[in-house]
Amino acid sequence: MKKILLIHGPNLNLLGDRERDIYGTATLKEINDKLGAIAKKEGITLKAVQSNHEGEIVELIGGAKGKYDAILINPAAYTHTSVAIRDAISASAVPCVEVHLSNIYKREEFRHTSLIASVAKGQICGFGVMSYILGLEAAIYLTKEKNK
Amino acid sequence: MKKILLIHGPNLNLLGDRERDIYGTATLKEINDKLGAIAKKEGITLKAVQSNHEGEIVELIGGAKGKYDAILINPAAYTHTSVAIRDAISASAVPCVEVHLSNIYKREEFRHTSLIASVAKGQICGFGVMSYILGLEAAIYLTKEKNK
Amino acid sequence: MKKILLIHGPNLNLLGDRERDIYGTATLKEINDKLGAIAKKEGITLKAVQSNHEGEIVELIGGAKGKYDAILINPAAYTHTSVAIRDAISASAVPCVEVHLSNIYKREEFRHTSLIASVAKGQICGFGVMSYILGLEAAIYLTKEKNK
Amino acid sequence: MKKILLIHGPNLNLLGDRERDIYGTATLKEINDKLGAIAKKEGITLKAVQSNHEGEIVELIGGAKGKYDAILINPAAYTHTSVAIRDAISASAVPCVEVHLSNIYKREEFRHTSLIASVAKGQICGFGVMSYILGLEAAIYLTKEKNK
Amino acid sequence: MKKILLIHGPNLNLLGDRERDIYGTATLKEINDKLGAIAKKEGITLKAVQSNHEGEIVELIGGAKGKYDAILINPAAYTHTSVAIRDAISASAVPCVEVHLSNIYKREEFRHTSLIASVAKGQICGFGVMSYILGLEAAIYLTKEKNK
Amino acid sequence: MKKILLIHGPNLNLLGDRERDIYGTATLKEINDKLGAIAKKEGITLKAVQSNHEGEIVELIGGAKGKYDAILINPAAYTHTSVAIRDAISASAVPCVEVHLSNIYKREEFRHTSLIASVAKGQICGFGVMSYILGLEAAIYLTKEKNK
Amino acid sequence: MKKILLIHGPNLNLLGDRERDIYGTATLKEINDKLGAIAKKEGITLKAVQSNHEGEIVELIGGAKGKYDAILINPAAYTHTSVAIRDAISASAVPCVEVHLSNIYKREEFRHTSLIASVAKGQICGFGVMSYILGLEAAIYLTKEKNK
Amino acid sequence: MKKILLIHGPNLNLLGDRERDIYGTATLKEINDKLGAIAKKEGITLKAVQSNHEGEIVELIGGAKGKYDAILINPAAYTHTSVAIRDAISASAVPCVEVHLSNIYKREEFRHTSLIASVAKGQICGFGVMSYILGLEAAIYLTKEKNK
Amino acid sequence: MKKILLIHGPNLNLLGDRERDIYGTATLKEINDKLGAIAKKEGITLKAVQSNHEGEIVELIGGAKGKYDAILINPAAYTHTSVAIRDAISASAVPCVEVHLSNIYKREEFRHTSLIASVAKGQICGFGVMSYILGLEAAIYLTKEKNK
Amino acid sequence: MKKILLIHGPNLNLLGDRERDIYGTATLKEINDKLGAIAKKEGITLKAVQSNHEGEIVELIGGAKGKYDAILINPAAYTHTSVAIRDAISASAVPCVEVHLSNIYKREEFRHTSLIASVAKGQICGFGVMSYILGLEAAIYLTKEKNK
Amino acid sequence: MKKILLIHGPNLNLLGDRERDIYGTATLKEINDKLGAIAKKEGITLKAVQSNHEGEIVELIGGAKGKYDAILINPAAYTHTSVAIRDAISASAVPCVEVHLSNIYKREEFRHTSLIASVAKGQICGFGVMSYILGLEAAIYLTKEKNK
Amino acid sequence: MKKILLIHGPNLNLLGDRERDIYGTATLKEINDKLGAIAKKEGITLKAVQSNHEGEIVELIGGAKGKYDAILINPAAYTHTSVAIRDAISASAVPCVEVHLSNIYKREEFRHTSLIASVAKGQICGFGVMSYILGLEAAIYLTKEKNK
Repeated sequence: MKKILLIHGPNLNLLGDRERDIYGTATLKEINDKLGAIAKKEGITLKAVQSNHEGEIVELIGGAKGKYDAILINPAAYTHTSVAIRDAISASAVPCVEVHLSNIYKREEFRHTSLIASVAKGQICGFGVMSYILGLEAAIYLTKEKNK
Repeated sequence: MKKILLIHGPNLNLLGDRERDIYGTATLKEINDKLGAIAKKEGITLKAVQSNHEGEIVELIGGAKGKYDAILINPAAYTHTSVAIRDAISASAVPCVEVHLSNIYKREEFRHTSLIASVAKGQICGFGVMSYILGLEAAIYLTKEKNK
Repeated sequence: MKKILLIHGPNLNLLGDRERDIYGTATLKEINDKLGAIAKKEGITLKAVQSNHEGEIVELIGGAKGKYDAILINPAAYTHTSVAIRDAISASAVPCVEVHLSNIYKREEFRHTSLIASVAKGQICGFGVMSYILGLEAAIYLTKEKNK
Repeated sequence: MKKILLIHGPNLNLLGDRERDIYGTATLKEINDKLGAIAKKEGITLKAVQSNHEGEIVELIGGAKGKYDAILINPAAYTHTSVAIRDAISASAVPCVEVHLSNIYKREEFRHTSLIASVAKGQICGFGVMSYILGLEAAIYLTKEKNK
Repeated sequence: MKKILLIHGPNLNLLGDRERDIYGTATLKEINDKLGAIAKKEGITLKAVQSNHEGEIVELIGGAKGKYDAILINPAAYTHTSVAIRDAISASAVPCVEVHLSNIYKREEFRHTSLIASVAKGQICGFGVMSYILGLEAAIYLTKEKNK
Repeated sequence: MKKILLIHGPNLNLLGDRERDIYGTATLKEINDKLGAIAKKEGITLKAVQSNHEGEIVELIGGAKGKYDAILINPAAYTHTSVAIRDAISASAVPCVEVHLSNIYKREEFRHTSLIASVAKGQICGFGVMSYILGLEAAIYLTKEKNK
Repeated sequence: MKKILLIHGPNLNLLGDRERDIYGTATLKEINDKLGAIAKKEGITLKAVQSNHEGEIVELIGGAKGKYDAILINPAAYTHTSVAIRDAISASAVPCVEVHLSNIYKREEFRHTSLIASVAKGQICGFGVMSYILGLEAAIYLTKEKNK
Repeated sequence: MKKILLIHGPNLNLLGDRERDIYGTATLKEINDKLGAIAKKEGITLKAVQSNHEGEIVELIGGAKGKYDAILINPAAYTHTSVAIRDAISASAVPCVEVHLSNIYKREEFRHTSLIASVAKGQICGFGVMSYILGLEAAIYLTKEKNK
Repeated sequence: MKKILLIHGPNLNLLGDRERDIYGTATLKEINDKLGAIAKKEGITLKAVQSNHEGEIVELIGGAKGKYDAILINPAAYTHTSVAIRDAISASAVPCVEVHLSNIYKREEFRHTSLIASVAKGQICGFGVMSYILGLEAAIYLTKEKNK
Repeated sequence: MKKILLIHGPNLNLLGDRERDIYGTATLKEINDKLGAIAKKEGITLKAVQSNHEGEIVELIGGAKGKYDAILINPAAYTHTSVAIRDAISASAVPCVEVHLSNIYKREEFRHTSLIASVAKGQICGFGVMSYILGLEAAIYLTKEKNK
Repeated sequence: MKKILLIHGPNLNLLGDRERDIYGTATLKEINDKLGAIAKKEGITLKAVQSNHEGEIVELIGGAKGKYDAILINPAAYTHTSVAIRDAISASAVPCVEVHLSNIYKREEFRHTSLIASVAKGQICGFGVMSYILGLEAAIYLTKEKNK
Repeated sequence: MKKILLIHGPNLNLLGDRERDIYGTATLKEINDKLGAIAKKEGITLKAVQSNHEGEIVELIGGAKGKYDAILINPAAYTHTSVAIRDAISASAVPCVEVHLSNIYKREEFRHTSLIASVAKGQICGFGVMSYILGLEAAIYLTKEKNK
């Protein structure tokens, strides 16, 4: 049975309550439940974690090697500042999908650059909760193909 | 019945034959057939066009207003150089999904900037043909929600 | 009898319908009619063309040499990206007036740079349809003076 | 009766005598007379002032609120260096037309950026004295329309 | 018998008539005739095309695969703006020689960067019509060597 | 009774001992005591926390919503690197005052840019411990006004 | 008896009337009265001056040496453009506090850089009239400490 | 007896397993053992710690003052992003040696800039495990000299 | 009899009293007296003026045409910010020598760029009062040669 | 009889032995022999020199005035760093052809800029030894035409 | 018996006498003697050369191929300006260690970039004479391992 | 008796013959003779050297310590590229005057930056041979004052 690790980055615990015009009204729990249901239907084990700590995220990813078949991550603010998470993704060598609720290219200049994108398999952004759903599909797809 | 316009940008007519390590082995016809089948199942009319001409793509998008419910576009090389296509998307006001076969953030510096991304609803890249499939799902999703 | 060539760049066929807060409510036909009337009163032949194709605009300008006494152009999106149109203006050596409906200096950073401005005689922007009227006056003025 | 304030920035008192290849042979008095005549014919009161002092220009603009219906300004050198004049235009909220005798985009790199343009209604440059005449027409036009 | 495709980019149809101090007095026909004669003597078929349309040039190059043994191109203005032509050259995998009549490094800053150069085999510029002659020799040389 | 959360960023636990020429001789405890006394006199509850962990500070701010009426923060090193703290401030929507002991504009280039400043209400820097006192006054003032 | 010189830069004479959403509704006289009252209570002589002239402000500061114990300045637009005022502050060696009504880091890019900040003791911005009050306290504090 | 603190930054716990072409095959334990043996022979106490948490590394360094005679650090990813670690090194005033397994100047552009280097005594990179050995020698050397 | 206009820019009235380590101990009067004596010996009329006002300096230079044979100017702070003074020098066409007491290339980055240098005949800096003496010699030399 | 000076820059003495994938397998002697034969057939005297010393190359070029009719130079590493060689070419006024074995636009960023190109007549790169042969033809061509 | 070539770049002949606060008090001879002794003990032949000439250093390195097993170089000023030395190192393919007496990252901005670092095996800086000793150890280590 | 070393950089041996519109018609010998005469009158020994070799100039300056009281240098092209000459000037600690015949600020962008200026006492440029004469006076002045 394939396993996917879902990582939510900093401040995503505030979803539903926080700047709704940007991030929508769904709570993190609602997102996790929805994704869990989809994964289940596909016969995939989905493990969801939220952390505000760069170091914890580094450890989650570093520890994923050999345990998970794919990582689905919304690195949130760390997208733009964390070389450590980037290095963890490279080091773990687990295929990784980067998602964002908002369209980061419509926002402040500094959000247009992702340190994660070039070590992820691909990136999905701008569709709200739908970004996560598409990201999960992408991750499931990656677990199925045995190629790079 | 909802209608989606699928636009393939310059050089995508060469798919399957061209730099396979970057773009994969599927031909454009195979991609269109696969997406057509998915759309059909969802009860969506999918119209697929490929063009190497910036002006033609501008006209396709400008003419989509009132005729199509969403646009799915792989602007290819024009992603990085066409303000005209960007303006057409803004002008038509049809919700638009931007997709790329390759992960543009792993390639040359000039491919890291998209003139299209900030006028599209969202962007998906890096998953090969799967980028198109996810993009179509996103476009179908956009035709269903009546919000911005 | 003096002749002026009026060129409208990409997406201007959508005027009146497109982003009215930026571009106003007049249609392209209304603008052409108004300018035509002014030209007529001044005893000038005005030929108006709209094109979404960079190459077509290049050919219009290249072909203007010896046929037109001035060019009035709203290069729209190509203002910021077309070296080819710039070269055509230099090559044709027909005096050229650049106009814009909107104030391009109030908009996105990339619209602040015009590749056309330094080969045109002058530039007028920000006054909506009035930009065209002032531009036509400038073009007529240029046809009258025999100087550089 | 509508009133327009015409402001000539630094060194423009030297016109006619100064670098004629760039600025032409007309003196400032000749320009003011020509514009005055046009304004008179349109039933507009035109008040013309020249100043080499940034602070004076700031005060002229700050004092224009409620007294003038439009401002026509050639900020000359201060175009590129004066945030104070920019702020005065914003603060006074009197619609403002920016003009230049020369085509600033054909000259030194530092003249390509105007701090004034994005707070003016529009900009006209490159037509010599004709820039002023077109600018006056634009200003008159602005006094007639009651919208922004 | 080896075949070479010669592509002239935008505005080159105006040669001989256009800015002679930069581009010389030879017309495009004269250049094509001279190159044709040289090719003939070398037993090479030379096909010459001029286009002002980026999309057409993309298609010419995309269609060259398997039909031509080398491409000789003067991309003119598109040298500095066309990612689409660059991608077409990569996609077609036909060895390509880039030539320019003028020395682009003596001209405006934006002409110092070629998007084409890094996908071409080599670049020749600054020798007027002689650039084309040397370029043709280089292209013939490339058709003869079977290496990269 | 109004409540203010005082957050001291990384390395501020070393105050009094650390680079005294830059940061002065007061210890963190002395600063907290002094601010506590002032707050008490104003009838304000002041909660002071120091953390070297970006994630902890993110959580402190995220958790402040609905519990505190204002935040007084010296983000120290994270001023220049933390998008996560910036996002936490935006997400919590608690009015925030940014303070610095030293004048950051007199120091290394990278300290001249604050990621926090544009989401804080205002910034105070350069007055040593007096920066904190003024910052507390500002925070108290913000708790009193009911406007943004 | 200590003396403080309060300098208001260009356009601040328009306060209360000008862009109220940015600068608030208090007039300059009201601000001066409020600050005067605070100073009086502290036994400080406060001299308030407003000038739109860079040169005048330079002279006020140059003349402050030996006459005033501190300077409180809102350099307004000159914050971003005046090396002369910066040099005057260095030359006078009177301790100086820089204040701004608005949060300059939330506004246009060019307002993020202050030429004054690195020669002032410190900077306070973003709190409206409260910025002045805090600035006055800071200035009074500086007159009391005999150290740098 | 002299004491040296050895700090390994984020992801270094994965050594030996992670990208071996860049970082070699030695595990962290093997490196620590080798360095411990060298230190022992020199009569030095070596304390080795690995952390993925920026805040923990800040605290390790902040707490080193008075306890350790030198710090040997491989800041890994934090080299390029952590002002907090930089400030901790300045604040602790313990002489510090920065080492890297790989030659950071051969890798991505963003790895060419170290925020740590200018507060360390010196930097050693590119020699794999030998970088650590040389770094330890440098640290021992620093503990012996009583000069800056 | 030849006439030279000597202009001292902002804050130079403070010389002798101001930052002596940078500008030396001579007062402006002492400098003027010394230069006056040298000029007298050479049979030159020297007129010395100091101004803190950009506009005044603009007028001094604009008015120099036909009255003075050379200008000797220390533009001080306006060196780096005044396009108006630059334009005045171009407009007046009186040969101009730029001098600085300090070596501006040893100071802050923004002092390394002079807007004046490229319209002056030459520049002399770094020799304290000797810069003025050499500058006067240069100006006298310029009044003697009749060439550009 | 026409004379051409052939200059090989630094490290080119190592050709044939050095990085063959970039520079090919021909030795410098082989290249010189081949070019000598071609020159001889054309009735041209070819003098070939290799130097690793910037100063020597400067002297070779400075001494070429009046002795040689054209210079053929591969400046190698000095292409990107030597203003002295650039100045020598300008000073000697002997028409100069710049060649490179490799396509410098496919290599490191710093190799994309040539200080020589804008003072040479033209540039040829990317064709291996063929670059030299084409360059010699270009140089011979330049010796024949008496124009610029 | 292994051989190492030690190269000292420009101005290093002045060591001991020159800016001692930056470079220390040891003379070049003392350094060479110390390193010679260490090498001897390790059974290594060390050849030390100092040169102020870029071309000479290029030749030393070019000539090292097949004669030396490693190069130890302090390129001094040429670190930041010499592409020729960089190319020589690449061409010779002898493993190379770059050392600096001072910490180049604590000095002027232009010293932060090394053209040598990315072609050397590794870099050591900031430890004074100890940098050389560590560098020699690194070089010896490189001669012993047969890997890249 | 005081001694001054006069160094002429690369290509200056060509003076009088080379680009006379930029550098004038005087030969190097004429300049040396004129300066020699002036020095003699002042009782100064002047030693003049010209070199095209960066390394030679480095050695001339390095050897000047203790032998010369001042250096007068026109570094020509090396002004903009030689850190080695810059370091030699710092190392020798002999006061140095930098001169240029042309006004380097009127020429190409890359000539606006001098690596030498910030280690010289001062800089003089733009006055042709008069630059040398003024530079010699400055150097003589420096030999007379015993201060920094």
